[in-house]
Amino acid sequence: MNEREWFTEAFENKTAFSVKYSRKLYESKSAFQKIEVYETPVMGKVLSLDGCFMVTEKDSFVYHEMITHPATAMIKQPQSALVIGGGDGGAITELVKYPEFKKIILCEIDEGVISACREFFPEISSGLADPRVEVVCEDGAAYVKKFQQEFDIILVDSTDPVGPGKALYELDFYNSVKNALRSGGVANFQTESPFFMANVFADTVKNLRSVFGPQSATPYLCVIPSYPGALWSFTMCSTEPKDFSIASCGLSGECVSSLNYYNAQVHIAAFVLPNFVQKLIS
Amino acid sequence: MNEREWFTEAFENKTAFSVKYSRKLYESKSAFQKIEVYETPVMGKVLSLDGCFMVTEKDSFVYHEMITHPATAMIKQPQSALVIGGGDGGAITELVKYPEFKKIILCEIDEGVISACREFFPEISSGLADPRVEVVCEDGAAYVKKFQQEFDIILVDSTDPVGPGKALYELDFYNSVKNALRSGGVANFQTESPFFMANVFADTVKNLRSVFGPQSATPYLCVIPSYPGALWSFTMCSTEPKDFSIASCGLSGECVSSLNYYNAQVHIAAFVLPNFVQKLIS
Repeated sequence: MNEREWFTEAFENKTAFSVKYSRKLYESKSAFQKIEVYETPVMGKVLSLDGCFMVTEKDSFVYHEMITHPATAMIKQPQSALVIGGGDGGAITELVKYPEFKKIILCEIDEGVISACREFFPEISSGLADPRVEVVCEDGAAYVKKFQQEFDIILVDSTDPVGPGKALYELDFYNSVKNALRSGGVANFQTESPFFMANVFADTVKNLRSVFGPQSATPYLCVIPSYPGALWSFTMCSTEPKDFSIASCGLSGECVSSLNYYNAQVHIAAFVLPNFVQKLIS
Repeated sequence: MNEREWFTEAFENKTAFSVKYSRKLYESKSAFQKIEVYETPVMGKVLSLDGCFMVTEKDSFVYHEMITHPATAMIKQPQSALVIGGGDGGAITELVKYPEFKKIILCEIDEGVISACREFFPEISSGLADPRVEVVCEDGAAYVKKFQQEFDIILVDSTDPVGPGKALYELDFYNSVKNALRSGGVANFQTESPFFMANVFADTVKNLRSVFGPQSATPYLCVIPSYPGALWSFTMCSTEPKDFSIASCGLSGECVSSLNYYNAQVHIAAFVLPNFVQKLIS
């Protein structure tokens, strides 16, 4: 591909996904990573961090809806939530749709990501302006240690297990997240693709089960075309054993029908794992 | 990407998926298309037709299982099947797992695809050697017109609606397929990605519903990372209204557990459509 026209994410120098762009809108180097924003004909605006697709206007609704609503559906009348990572504000924008929340904290290590997304992705980041939302720019792995039995919901909206995201894949962090949950609370972790990152997926689920308990950590799936492998996983964890596949969405009917991916049937279907995914974690 | 090391499929010159290869194993130009086979570190062997990924050892099991088993699960004791397209033999290899079939016909327009797959994808194409299988190298759109109420199952394993695959997206062909089905029979069509080919997907489902009836043509989904958009659809059609999402797999338990993607729960979940897909076809 001509590097002046195409943005390419090469995955482990073995596969690559490229999007043709019409303009590069932004480029900066923060203390943590390289931040770029492109305008593209087919994916809309695209945010990349250290050369990896993070947000696209075309398909990020899947990620943001699917990290958020399956978790909120587990809790009746959720009051408090913490999002670790997720500086694009997309998960926050989904959370603020619930009037019940009184406190929502975003802890993103890189202020540069937040400001780029406020500027170039105003719809995706719009929830950051909600008066219930507090934005903290700190290391999430350290920040979460400040809390004991505080949150109904914690969303770990991490990047890959390299660079600034690495600490969010360690047992110590998982224990801290568990301790920061109220009894009955739910933590939801981004856990990579079972296709191209099968080992990371399997190891992360195994580690989460060792911390939360074998009946209290369950992966589910969705599809994000701009991410390597496309079949993407989250792993839902709770302070007590739970059947995560049975849930009732707390959103009003009008709000549910405004979503683009999630609904009650999608929730149940997402927990159904193809045989090869089951084998990876059994 | 360096063209000497990477095989790239550019989709409408807007996005591209590339795989690094170690060797090009085969290249030929048939009467219909350019056929290439690459050895790649991450996707195993890859077959491309006119520059598009068709088969990879890494992920084609999804396609072959998901075009076949949801359809066979609809029919008790299926006797006869016709596969149109599908020269790689992958769907045939899934069909021959059912001892009930007496007659299975593969009608592939391009003999070059069949011979390349016999040589380079012996596992995927192994079903072609089953004594119940007849291989016909003809235009599928013309061939299917020879039959009236003949088949329990017809699988339309087509390429994209350009080049040799174009005739397999026309109303006349859909009518011919319907006429070739026995009463109660099921036809299953490859219907592209609702992400990147939303219009083709929506138009094809609409056209199939106009031929088979609105209650007799229902799309379902799976995930194929090497195809553009990754979220992939098939549309199941029958001679009479049917709830396709309720099915019992006719395979023995041992055979089901040898599959890598499909199981009874995956069948049900595949028919659950995300909101944006529902909106495309409503």
